[in-house]
Amino acid sequence: MRTTYAVGVDVGGTRIAAGLVERKGRMVKEAKVLTPKNGPFAVVDAVIDLINEVMATTHPSEIAGIGIGLPAQIDFLKQSIEFCTNLPLAGVDVRSLIMSRIRQDVTIDNDGHCAGIGEARFGAAKGVRDCVMITLGTGVGGALLLDGEPYRGSRGLGGEIGHMVVRLDGPPCPCGGFGHIESYLGRPAIAARGREAARAYSGQDIRDRANGDAEAVTAEHVVQAALAGDEIARGILIEAGGILGEALVGIVNLLNPRLIVVGGGIGESADMLVARAAEVIAEKALAGRRDVKVVQAQLGNDAGMLGAAGLAFDEHDSREGLHR
Amino acid sequence: MRTTYAVGVDVGGTRIAAGLVERKGRMVKEAKVLTPKNGPFAVVDAVIDLINEVMATTHPSEIAGIGIGLPAQIDFLKQSIEFCTNLPLAGVDVRSLIMSRIRQDVTIDNDGHCAGIGEARFGAAKGVRDCVMITLGTGVGGALLLDGEPYRGSRGLGGEIGHMVVRLDGPPCPCGGFGHIESYLGRPAIAARGREAARAYSGQDIRDRANGDAEAVTAEHVVQAALAGDEIARGILIEAGGILGEALVGIVNLLNPRLIVVGGGIGESADMLVARAAEVIAEKALAGRRDVKVVQAQLGNDAGMLGAAGLAFDEHDSREGLHR
Repeated sequence: MRTTYAVGVDVGGTRIAAGLVERKGRMVKEAKVLTPKNGPFAVVDAVIDLINEVMATTHPSEIAGIGIGLPAQIDFLKQSIEFCTNLPLAGVDVRSLIMSRIRQDVTIDNDGHCAGIGEARFGAAKGVRDCVMITLGTGVGGALLLDGEPYRGSRGLGGEIGHMVVRLDGPPCPCGGFGHIESYLGRPAIAARGREAARAYSGQDIRDRANGDAEAVTAEHVVQAALAGDEIARGILIEAGGILGEALVGIVNLLNPRLIVVGGGIGESADMLVARAAEVIAEKALAGRRDVKVVQAQLGNDAGMLGAAGLAFDEHDSREGLHR
Repeated sequence: MRTTYAVGVDVGGTRIAAGLVERKGRMVKEAKVLTPKNGPFAVVDAVIDLINEVMATTHPSEIAGIGIGLPAQIDFLKQSIEFCTNLPLAGVDVRSLIMSRIRQDVTIDNDGHCAGIGEARFGAAKGVRDCVMITLGTGVGGALLLDGEPYRGSRGLGGEIGHMVVRLDGPPCPCGGFGHIESYLGRPAIAARGREAARAYSGQDIRDRANGDAEAVTAEHVVQAALAGDEIARGILIEAGGILGEALVGIVNLLNPRLIVVGGGIGESADMLVARAAEVIAEKALAGRRDVKVVQAQLGNDAGMLGAAGLAFDEHDSREGLHR
């Protein structure tokens, strides 16, 4: 049966959002809550409440299922949570807990994969078969769309673009490695460059945005200063974009994608960073691959929720033997 | 109709080899010739002669088709040769030239992809669905097997593992880039490290293998000395293996493969290099991905030819609507 809606849930370290989504990606109802900090079952209960809230006025038979994006490493085939840094969900059978309370099929996936599915179905990568998505936020994540399908790897753990080395023995990465993409492009790395600049006289514009306290500078202050035209802040983001570009050259040489979508809070706001990365790719990728387009993501914070809903539609349709 | 044989051809810069291959990978007839240096049509003629030679005693209806691996960047969907560094084949319609003379279907592919298909169907990656193959030879190439299929990218140009950056602003790479995997792992890079060692007193074992001439040391001399137990030579290969490992950590984090197959002349002989790369991956890959196996390739120089034949079987079967 051709269902009308799916529920997409995006579970973040700070906030949980759920939406009732139509097949073409229109969100007809939305609900949000701050992420509970008192244990895994409080998180699961909050998710259930949100789902019930957005489903309340819809008949269950109209719903294809529920997709949930989690900030965790998920074994997609087993539907199990292997690791979860920011929430105490590792090993918790979130899917069964929710299915037992809400009589709908539930599919869980990594939040980065969900955001990728969202952009692929409804956003910047719509209609593209081979696409690399990279998310620049506090961490650097990503997702791969290969031959028209999300590619998750042998255990559902693929797509960790942030943890590819770009400088052997380079600066430390939050994961414990060194010289990874995230060592240069995550919010902490950009904030550190911003603080460095703000301590000098020339970094006044950045410093002003942190109320004159160089030590309080965040990545967002750097982006704001850059968007307002401050050359020092622009320099930081253009330098970061150059490093991103070098890393993406390698990924372009490896995967020969048609499109690269740069998302996440930093990726969607820092357009000069993305533009610089695109320049480096156009200049340095191996011949024949330089026609890859580099664009910013379109769905913002909704990408994960919309993608989770898209995933629920896909799972429903493959269960029913339907094809898109 | 279920055919018995395919012809696989491996066109190299030095030598062309063709084989008549059974469905399970047994090569029943083989022929080789040095690669002609007098223009593209001489190369095509040599390929045609070899194909005729190995097909001579077989009825055409028993042959599924012809697969040809070329040392070139090939747009697989268009079946066109985009770039070819070592042979003058760019833009030459090799496929039509051969099909017009031999009444069989011809499929061309990059030689690295063919070697990957060979290992995947008949060698070290048999039965594995998610595998990264890396070839350490004069250049560093590779192939991706994702969800059980060769992944070629949007224009058939994927798999260039050698041209991923591992050290921003690192040593030059033959492709014009800097700090790529090939900058450290290609034959020229290993030979340069060997010459450096051979100029010093402690590099005597390596020097001896080049008849006492430090400037004549090749990568093979380093590998031979290492296999014979020379600590300096072993050190060079273990260092290179460490760099390979760091690069593969990134690829494991990105693609979460089940298996990594290391092939090519250097990869298949330098076992301590491969063992060191495996150690680094086991230690440094993100949690959950460290169970990836790292093995040496099994098919040696025949991988490309066997894979080209495998490709011909696949293309035949998909034309006929058969499934493996």
